[in-house]
Amino acid sequence: MHKGYFFTVEGCEGAGKTSVITSASEYLSSKGYDIVTSREPGGIEIAEQIRSVILDKTNTLMDGRTEALLYAAARRQHLVEKVVPSLLEGKVVICDRFIDSSLAYQGYARGIGIEEVLAINSFAIDNLFPDLTIFLDVDPEIGLKRIHAHEDREINRLDLESLAFHQKVREGYLEVERLFPNRIVKVDASHHKDEVFERVKQVLNQFLESDSKA
Amino acid sequence: MHKGYFFTVEGCEGAGKTSVITSASEYLSSKGYDIVTSREPGGIEIAEQIRSVILDKTNTLMDGRTEALLYAAARRQHLVEKVVPSLLEGKVVICDRFIDSSLAYQGYARGIGIEEVLAINSFAIDNLFPDLTIFLDVDPEIGLKRIHAHEDREINRLDLESLAFHQKVREGYLEVERLFPNRIVKVDASHHKDEVFERVKQVLNQFLESDSKA
Ligand SMILES: Nc1ncnc2c1ncn2[C@@H]1O[C@H](COP(=O)(O)OP(=O)(O)OP(=O)(O)O)[C@@H](O)[C@H]1O
Ligand SMILES: Nc1ncnc2c1ncn2[C@@H]1O[C@H](COP(=O)(O)OP(=O)(O)OP(=O)(O)O)[C@@H](O)[C@H]1O
Ligand SMILES: [Mg+2]
Ligand SMILES: [Mg+2]
Repeated sequence: MHKGYFFTVEGCEGAGKTSVITSASEYLSSKGYDIVTSREPGGIEIAEQIRSVILDKTNTLMDGRTEALLYAAARRQHLVEKVVPSLLEGKVVICDRFIDSSLAYQGYARGIGIEEVLAINSFAIDNLFPDLTIFLDVDPEIGLKRIHAHEDREINRLDLESLAFHQKVREGYLEVERLFPNRIVKVDASHHKDEVFERVKQVLNQFLESDSKA
Repeated sequence: MHKGYFFTVEGCEGAGKTSVITSASEYLSSKGYDIVTSREPGGIEIAEQIRSVILDKTNTLMDGRTEALLYAAARRQHLVEKVVPSLLEGKVVICDRFIDSSLAYQGYARGIGIEEVLAINSFAIDNLFPDLTIFLDVDPEIGLKRIHAHEDREINRLDLESLAFHQKVREGYLEVERLFPNRIVKVDASHHKDEVFERVKQVLNQFLESDSKA
């Protein structure tokens, strides 16, 4: 049985997270690893209930910190019910977004503070940081264009506002990367899909090799 | 207009919190203060929704840390929607249980750790600690007897288990008092109601006097 690993993939919208996870799962499966992919709340009933409080459109008075605590609560439950049991079975868990999304979006872009959001998320994960995080870095303008590629329309004021926000999210990720230089590996995601995955493959192999030596 | 104050009352079950709050409200009203009493979730819709996730009996897989984060989230929303607006109107808010209950029950008695539960609650309250906290200290055996006074039955195994737990809660409160010696005033709640309130009145007056001089 392989030792379990916990990998996460992070990045702005359209950075290519889902695409990379699909390729990485196939690649690691072919190397004999047992792969579980997930994304919060991941079908975990309690986490879904928490999400529905967050997403309830009538909750217009929801405070930013309340929301951050609820995300951390949903993260905790997903971790306990899904991630940890898989790791204990020796599986490789690849999670689409995890703690760093909260740090970049709520901590930095929404202005609550990275250190502060880290405090509640450290409580939530209780030291179960990912073994390796791949941060797909690309100018959000490119990311948003990828997502909207099939829509044929002009860029409007809302897109621009949203663009400014996503630029902040990117800055946030860069800050977070500086906080966790050993865990987070930044991959330039502006290139062609195949090229991006080639680099991701290198990063994965480097990690697995150095871990097997450790 | 008076300056707003935020008071909380803490203690084990049956310590006399509700009784003290009733008397304190009347007393402070008679001195011209505008009083708001509350207890979480306090009718705040979002906080009520969060509570119902916590209390949902089918959520048997609820992790202790998830629960602690949910309590902190409900606390945050109650604070933002109810406590803060009242304070801004110059009212005196008296809250039945607040942050110290989480520290004593979940941090200490449930074993998550006071420092850890403090971290997420500090995030939740964002430095809005109570101006004064009255901790009604009494042996839980007495407190539980007060509550069960009207029931005429023997003490069973469940009561004993519950007693051991409440002894831990009391120890937890004593630890928390050591962490916040300036904010928390311990009042011996083993005496007659009138005597207990006499001491509470002294504590309130001391606080109000020293604050008006500051
Ligand atoms: N390197 C790339 N170059 C160009 N297009 C890409 C690249 N990677 C992914 N795409 C395409 O861009 C779109 C968004 O990619 P994907 O869904 O993988 O991103 P994502 O980071 O998961 O986005 P979201 O944040 O919306 O989940 C898809 O249509 C995908 O095929
Ligand atoms: N000092 C006292 N001595 C004896 N009985 C008391 C005293 N204070 C309160 N009681 C009685 O004990 C019972 C519990 O008191 P109270 O409801 O005020 O406690 P509480 O701390 O609010 O309890 P709970 O944790 O259940 O809310 C009530 O019947 C009350 O009248
Ligand atoms: Mg995706
Ligand atoms: Mg009461």
